[in-house]
Amino acid sequence: MARWDPGTEERLRAAALALCAEHGYDAVTVAQIADRAGITRRTFFRYFPDKREVLFAGSEQLPRAVAAAVRAASAAATPLAAALAAAAEVGALLADRAEHAAVRRAVIAASAELQERERTKVAAVAAAIRDALVERGVEPGRAGPTAQVATIAFQEAFTAFVDAGGGRTFQECLDEAVAVLRDVVAT
Amino acid sequence: MARWDPGTEERLRAAALALCAEHGYDAVTVAQIADRAGITRRTFFRYFPDKREVLFAGSEQLPRAVAAAVRAASAAATPLAAALAAAAEVGALLADRAEHAAVRRAVIAASAELQERERTKVAAVAAAIRDALVERGVEPGRAGPTAQVATIAFQEAFTAFVDAGGGRTFQECLDEAVAVLRDVVAT
Repeated sequence: MARWDPGTEERLRAAALALCAEHGYDAVTVAQIADRAGITRRTFFRYFPDKREVLFAGSEQLPRAVAAAVRAASAAATPLAAALAAAAEVGALLADRAEHAAVRRAVIAASAELQERERTKVAAVAAAIRDALVERGVEPGRAGPTAQVATIAFQEAFTAFVDAGGGRTFQECLDEAVAVLRDVVAT
Repeated sequence: MARWDPGTEERLRAAALALCAEHGYDAVTVAQIADRAGITRRTFFRYFPDKREVLFAGSEQLPRAVAAAVRAASAAATPLAAALAAAAEVGALLADRAEHAAVRRAVIAASAELQERERTKVAAVAAAIRDALVERGVEPGRAGPTAQVATIAFQEAFTAFVDAGGGRTFQECLDEAVAVLRDVVAT
């Protein structure tokens, strides 16, 4: 059995996204993804359990990354500021990736199954933010809503960032999303 | 083929929830649910496509109900007030059902598959609120976040309402959830 190769994983991810963008998620097979990445179907399964998970590769690291960002926020930061710092950190990973994110977003929007998986990912991120806020001493009844608000802000910012096609920074989009949320809630 | 019978549907719903609470969702079979409801496995499938959907029976009507409530809100209502009116309307359906809701919540919390289904339901409700707000003339960039905030408020209120075991009204819980959200966002 060959060892795990990061190049192969990256090729599988790119192949899966490109094929799904071309033919739609439902029509694409593991064999096609493996073939385009230049490996066998059998080797594919050494990297991913199924074709859905290729499209979410790396997302299992997100909860830990956002939790670390919440913990790293200044002690003086309000709960929402700490949660938004985490959102900004995830958003920074998207710099120069607006086009890739646009393709991925379109692939997900076309599949109920992928939307479900995406919601699971978002819920895990929100739970990680909430738990990290509680560790910071925020009471649970406040940590949950704070994490949810930060998650909404992230999602709105992501939409605006992708729509801008690289013409705006994620931070600009996040600041705008927070301003809209403040206004919505205040009125 | 016998006609559709609301009594049978209700018995199936109660049987499914009780069995899942006793044995856990994964361990329960369609045959067991049908048996407890006094029908055949074959008849079960005239009512529901699988055991998961029994636990979400009626939820397909929620998006239309919340959209109607948003439309019915006073013309003077702010976007958030209109969205919260919809949340209150759904919450009112829960009066005298706190115990039932507690059992259902525990069943869902114990299953990743049911949590996924629940998130799909919540997303459909949020989308219905957003679309109804747009119909009221709210700009889309504001309707989305408003619907999301109302959805969070609903979920927080639901948790508090169920935790109180019938000791508080849903509206009280909703008002409190909104107050927390205002405070979170303002600071």
